[in-house]
Amino acid sequence: MALIVQKYGGTSVGTPERIGLVADKVAGWRKKGNDVVVVVSAMSGETDRLLSLADAVAGVPPPRELDVLLATGEQVTIALLSMALEMRGIPARSYTGSQVHIRTDSAHNKARIREIEDKRIHADLADGRVVVVAGFQGADEYGNITTLGRGGSDTTAVALAAALKADECQIYTDVDGVYTTDPRVVPEARRLDRITFEEMLEMASLGSRVLQIRSVSFAGRYNVPLRVLSTFEEGEGTLITYEDETMEQALISGIAFNRDEAKLTIMGVPDKPGVAHQLLGPIAEANIEVDMIIQNVAPDGATTDFTFTVHRNDYKKGLAILEKTARAMGAREVSGDDKIVKISLVGVGMRSHAGIASTMFEALAKEGVNIRMISTSEIKVSVVVDEKYLELGVRTLHDTFKLEQPEVI
Amino acid sequence: MALIVQKYGGTSVGTPERIGLVADKVAGWRKKGNDVVVVVSAMSGETDRLLSLADAVAGVPPPRELDVLLATGEQVTIALLSMALEMRGIPARSYTGSQVHIRTDSAHNKARIREIEDKRIHADLADGRVVVVAGFQGADEYGNITTLGRGGSDTTAVALAAALKADECQIYTDVDGVYTTDPRVVPEARRLDRITFEEMLEMASLGSRVLQIRSVSFAGRYNVPLRVLSTFEEGEGTLITYEDETMEQALISGIAFNRDEAKLTIMGVPDKPGVAHQLLGPIAEANIEVDMIIQNVAPDGATTDFTFTVHRNDYKKGLAILEKTARAMGAREVSGDDKIVKISLVGVGMRSHAGIASTMFEALAKEGVNIRMISTSEIKVSVVVDEKYLELGVRTLHDTFKLEQPEVI
Repeated sequence: MALIVQKYGGTSVGTPERIGLVADKVAGWRKKGNDVVVVVSAMSGETDRLLSLADAVAGVPPPRELDVLLATGEQVTIALLSMALEMRGIPARSYTGSQVHIRTDSAHNKARIREIEDKRIHADLADGRVVVVAGFQGADEYGNITTLGRGGSDTTAVALAAALKADECQIYTDVDGVYTTDPRVVPEARRLDRITFEEMLEMASLGSRVLQIRSVSFAGRYNVPLRVLSTFEEGEGTLITYEDETMEQALISGIAFNRDEAKLTIMGVPDKPGVAHQLLGPIAEANIEVDMIIQNVAPDGATTDFTFTVHRNDYKKGLAILEKTARAMGAREVSGDDKIVKISLVGVGMRSHAGIASTMFEALAKEGVNIRMISTSEIKVSVVVDEKYLELGVRTLHDTFKLEQPEVI
Repeated sequence: MALIVQKYGGTSVGTPERIGLVADKVAGWRKKGNDVVVVVSAMSGETDRLLSLADAVAGVPPPRELDVLLATGEQVTIALLSMALEMRGIPARSYTGSQVHIRTDSAHNKARIREIEDKRIHADLADGRVVVVAGFQGADEYGNITTLGRGGSDTTAVALAAALKADECQIYTDVDGVYTTDPRVVPEARRLDRITFEEMLEMASLGSRVLQIRSVSFAGRYNVPLRVLSTFEEGEGTLITYEDETMEQALISGIAFNRDEAKLTIMGVPDKPGVAHQLLGPIAEANIEVDMIIQNVAPDGATTDFTFTVHRNDYKKGLAILEKTARAMGAREVSGDDKIVKISLVGVGMRSHAGIASTMFEALAKEGVNIRMISTSEIKVSVVVDEKYLELGVRTLHDTFKLEQPEVI
C-alpha cells in the first residue's frame, strides 16, 4: 500500500464524462489498497470563460479579485470529482486550497507556496477517504485567495506530495510520457521509461512542455518521485528519478529545442571590467529575459564581442535598447537575428563521457547545418542554428545518438 | 452617513452589463458618504448550470459536495462586482462566506447561520472600502463550505446587517416594493410605503414571493430595518418596520393568496384526548407540512370532524395516509379536495378593529363566493375557497377594503 498524489489537468476533467473516467481511474488505484490524494485543474475552457467575464466587467481586473474569480474553476472540479467518486462507492472529500491551508505568499496571480498543513488530509486518508484538492490555488496569511498562475496545479500536486511524504506523485496529462524529442519532428522519437530530475529540468526549460518547470524543480528539491502518465491511455509513463538511483545512465536522454529564440550581438565594446553589467542591466530593467550569453575577445585584443539570446517577442525592444547602449559605450556595431532556433542535447551521461559535443558538431556539419552559437552546461550542449535547419538538425542528432533504440541499463 | 447592507439577487447580476449597473448603484450610495456592504447571489442561470453538471456526473450528489459546487456561483459574482467597483474608482474587496466567518451549522444545503465575525468587515469599511460578500453560503465549525438553500442570500444580508448593526438592509429585486396584492390579479394594487414585520411575515408565508420568509423573521428578531427596492427602477421601495414606529396603522395592509393548497377531511373520529396527534403524527412523519387545521365537534357530540390543508403536491400521499389512519381509528369517512385556494386579509390594524372578518365574509357572500374553511390569527383572516373564485375573491376584497387608496397616516 502506497500513498499516491495524482494530478489531472484541465483536458482530463474537461467534461462530465471525462470526470467519470478520472473517477474510474482513481477508484482503481484506491481499490488496489493505495491511499490517494487527487489534485485537479479547472475544466478546460472554464478559465477562459471566467477571464472573458472579467474582461467584460472590468478590462484589466485587480489581481486580488481575479484570483477570487479564477479559484472557482478548480472548486467546481473538486466538487464534481468527489461526487463521481462517491457515486462509485468510494468515500471522497473535496478541499479548496485555503481549506487544506495551502499557505502562499500574497503575490496574487503568481503566488508561491510557503507551507501546507497535512493533518486534515492524513485524517481523511486514515478514515479511508480519497482526498480531492483544488490545484493552482491557496490562501495567504490573511486568508485572501491566491493563485499560482496558469499550470500551477502541477506545483500543487508536487507540494502536497512533499508535505504528505507521498510515495509517488503522478502527473496525468494528454501525452503518455517524456519522449527523446518531439514526435511531431522525429517520428522515431521514443518514450523514456525514466529520466533524471536534472535532465527533466533542462528538457522542460528548453521547451518540452510536458511539465511545468517550477513543479519539476520543486519535486527535485523535496525528493518527490514524479511520474508523467496519460489520462486516456494505459501505460507506465515516464518516471522522473534521482541520478543516484540508477546504476548507469544513458549517454543522452533527449533532444530539446526552442523555436522562440532571437539573438542580439554587440561588437567592438571596449574590454574593461563591468561591461557585461553595463550591457545587460538596461535589458533586465526592461523585463527582458536573457537565455544564452557568449562573450569573446575581439581580434584586436582591446575590444570584446558580446552575443545573447532573448525570446523572439522581445527582439525588437531588445535591439532598440542595445543600440542606445552601444552609442553610450562607443561600441562599433549592433546586429541581430530573429530567425534562429536552439537545439540541445540533454543527458547526465555527458558528465562522464568526453566527445559528445564534438560528435554533435560533426554530425551537424556533415548535413551542412551551420552553428551560430554554442553553449554548454554539465548535462547539456546547446547550439543556435538558423530556423530553417531545425527539423534537419533534430533528426540528424536523434539518429546520430541512436535515441530510437531502448536504453541499455 | 449611514451603514447600509444591500443585497442584489441573481437577476440583478445576471450579465456583465447588469453587474456594471449594480456597481453604478453601489458607487452612488458610496459617493453620498455611506458605508456600503453588498451581498450578491449567483448570476441567474449559474446555479442551474452547476446543478446540471452535478446531475451529469453523479445523479444525486452528496450534500457536502453540492455545497462546494454551488458556492462557486456567488464567488464568481463577488469577484466580478468588486472588479467593476474598482474600475469605477471605488475601492472594494470581495469575501466568500467562509472568509468573513459566516459560521453556520453543518446542515448542508439548508444550513443556518450561527454567528458572523464583523471585525474584518468593519476594518475594510474604516479603510474606505466597499465590502462585497457572497450570499447564500457560509462554513461550519470545521471549515466545510455550507449553503443556506436557494434564496438564502436575503438571509445573509439580514444577518450581516444585524451583526454589523447596519442602519438599513436594502433588498434589491425585480419588483419595486411590496404591493397590497398581486398586480397581475388586481391591476389597481398599490405599492405600500411601509409594512410591519408581522404583516410581511404573513404576506410572505402566504405566497407573496418578494422576500424569503426566513430573512424576514430573522430581520424582525434582530430589529433590522428592511427595505425592498427595484434594481432597475428608481424609487423608495417598501420599508418593513416595527409596529411601534408608526402612530396609526392602516386597517388592512394587503391581500395574500396561495394557489398551491389542498384540503383533507376526516369525519366521525371518536372524540377523545390525543386524537389530533394520532391523526397528524403519520402526516408529519411523511414530511408533509400542514397549514390550516380545523376541528369541530360533530352533531352527534361523541365524534369529531377534522380538516387540514397541505401543499397540493402532497395531496395524494396525504390522502392515502389519512385513509389508513381512518381505518385504524374507526373513523366514518375521509374526503379531500385539491382544487382549493387560500385568500388572506393581513393587517396589524385588525387587532384594534372588530368586524373585519364579518365585512370580509359579507363581501364574498355578496359575490357568491362560498367559503369552505376559515382560520384567523391576530393580524390575519384566511378563507379557503374553490379555485375558480380566486381572482373574483381577491378583487372583491381589494375593492371592499379600498386598498387602492393611499394609507392615511
